[in-house]
Amino acid sequence: MQVRMDWQSLQAFTAEIFTRAGLKPEDAQTEAEVLVWANLRGIDSHGVLRVPQYLRNIDRGGMNPRAEIRVEKETAATALVEGDHAFGPVVTKFAMNIAISKAAEVGIGWVVIRNTTHQGAMGYYTMMAADRDMAGLAFVCNPPNMAPYGAKAAGLHNSPISIAVPGNKHRPLVLDMATSVAAMGKISLAIDKGTPIPQGWALDKDGQPTTDPRLAAILLPFGGYKASHLALMFECLSSLMVCNPLLEPTLLHQEPVRPGTQNSVVAAINIGLFTDIETYKQHIDALVEGLKGLPKADGFDEILVPGEFEDRVCEERLALGIPLPPGTVDNLREAAARFGIPLPPALHEEAA
Amino acid sequence: MQVRMDWQSLQAFTAEIFTRAGLKPEDAQTEAEVLVWANLRGIDSHGVLRVPQYLRNIDRGGMNPRAEIRVEKETAATALVEGDHAFGPVVTKFAMNIAISKAAEVGIGWVVIRNTTHQGAMGYYTMMAADRDMAGLAFVCNPPNMAPYGAKAAGLHNSPISIAVPGNKHRPLVLDMATSVAAMGKISLAIDKGTPIPQGWALDKDGQPTTDPRLAAILLPFGGYKASHLALMFECLSSLMVCNPLLEPTLLHQEPVRPGTQNSVVAAINIGLFTDIETYKQHIDALVEGLKGLPKADGFDEILVPGEFEDRVCEERLALGIPLPPGTVDNLREAAARFGIPLPPALHEEAA
Repeated sequence: MQVRMDWQSLQAFTAEIFTRAGLKPEDAQTEAEVLVWANLRGIDSHGVLRVPQYLRNIDRGGMNPRAEIRVEKETAATALVEGDHAFGPVVTKFAMNIAISKAAEVGIGWVVIRNTTHQGAMGYYTMMAADRDMAGLAFVCNPPNMAPYGAKAAGLHNSPISIAVPGNKHRPLVLDMATSVAAMGKISLAIDKGTPIPQGWALDKDGQPTTDPRLAAILLPFGGYKASHLALMFECLSSLMVCNPLLEPTLLHQEPVRPGTQNSVVAAINIGLFTDIETYKQHIDALVEGLKGLPKADGFDEILVPGEFEDRVCEERLALGIPLPPGTVDNLREAAARFGIPLPPALHEEAA
Repeated sequence: MQVRMDWQSLQAFTAEIFTRAGLKPEDAQTEAEVLVWANLRGIDSHGVLRVPQYLRNIDRGGMNPRAEIRVEKETAATALVEGDHAFGPVVTKFAMNIAISKAAEVGIGWVVIRNTTHQGAMGYYTMMAADRDMAGLAFVCNPPNMAPYGAKAAGLHNSPISIAVPGNKHRPLVLDMATSVAAMGKISLAIDKGTPIPQGWALDKDGQPTTDPRLAAILLPFGGYKASHLALMFECLSSLMVCNPLLEPTLLHQEPVRPGTQNSVVAAINIGLFTDIETYKQHIDALVEGLKGLPKADGFDEILVPGEFEDRVCEERLALGIPLPPGTVDNLREAAARFGIPLPPALHEEAA
């Protein structure tokens, strides 16, 4: 049985957990917001199921609850932010706010973050820009978990990219996708369900193709060489730009990479400095309507635009609560017990 | 039989053709350079085979040989360039030079081009940035030729994206790829060879899947919804940003789109303002070596990095000349006759 929890209770609970774990209350609040935002939109792989992993990472010295985030370099349009292994949402929100301020002045803000940790769903940050009538762009690089096209070992990260733009009547369009065929979260889900994964999603640890999600160890890029090359360029534009390589650390660095390290770019583009913002947003609506009105391919009832599916899930979950599978509830109960706080009440139980 | 022509003769010939067709000599030279650059790198679909198409487009009023290119809006980091339907390479090189100048000052230059025409291979422009120790980024939107995921009609363009970064001993990495599974050029090649195309590349004009390249009318995105959504966001970041929608023009505009119109973004990022440029380039080399040293998947002898295959073709073609199929030679001969100039001599003939 899974339970549903009210999103506000879940967010307050998550913030309390991270405050007790050592974060400043406002940072704990930011972390909780980003996790629950993902749950609300159905991106459960980036939601509160991460709580125990983050607590372990604090204990092991990977994530820094009291990081000293600082701007190391800066121009009118760019910044280099040293994250000091802060919780990803704390440093990434900080960085996107800088990008937005710079874009307000000079049309674009481009911020590279060194030494963040897991950032959650990247759409949260690009939506920050869209909510301020800007276009948002973000991408990430982590240590290897994906085989480059032609290899049978991990050499790239399945780096996600997110782009968001505001609509008028239509909700903002928000693209948020990994460069692998399927994200690791979908493989975890197949393990939980006991179903095989399609051929082409993953390799086992020896580099052999597998359809057994329990053996899946190395992700595969979508579109063959195309997403493989895109992921490679994201490392070049993020990690290498801040001299913190994550894909080839042993070749030039003696120090091992601290577990959980990520580098990232967040950017904002000020639409109003290029064109009339209201007209822009009307064009987004017209574009969405135009695409959705096209004749459907066999097997399709409708054409979805980026973020539309997640918007629908969000509407439902705002009303009915966020469904949490038994494993996640057990983990949250354990965290609650550790810090002596109550688990939020279940709205109701239901079959998964 | 195909013939091989020396690249310099072919470039001088192409420049002469476009000068006679009404371009300023320096603009004709730019156009010829970008076309022959593509041929040298094996991207023949974006090479001199385009000459007759461009001549027709001048005749029909699509491409403007004497465009008044102008910067309409500008900040320290951004610009909006009105292309006045100039030849793509003329306006795009102009725009990338602006991006590079701005990046030199404030770390990034982000330029949106309205009303360019066919720009050729986008890697040419991102390589301009890489040659100046910057990262280059470019993408494009055109009127629809690709079905959005779930549709059986064209609603998106198979918008290409290019990213380039400089190496040290290694040549710059240059990604240049369309968002369709295969570019239209590959379908034309299948027609010429009389071979079928794989399932999943294209639909016929009625939206039915086809493996007959002669019936292929609508391209399909790679990775299903992923590249479909990416292409959509490129329209939002280029065309809509300059109020010149190409995917839904009839909905908000009465005027039909002038044939051959494209909008585009070119950007440069100044690596040296973020990190030590020499160290950066060493990391690129190390990353390339690291990836190429990974164990190979079955059926692969080596792992190629972005631009590597094209670099090899270029080396061969610089030495042996550029191979041109009979159809292209006939078209160039016709153009030569129109303007009363001689076709460059063939170095030799060979089986295709």
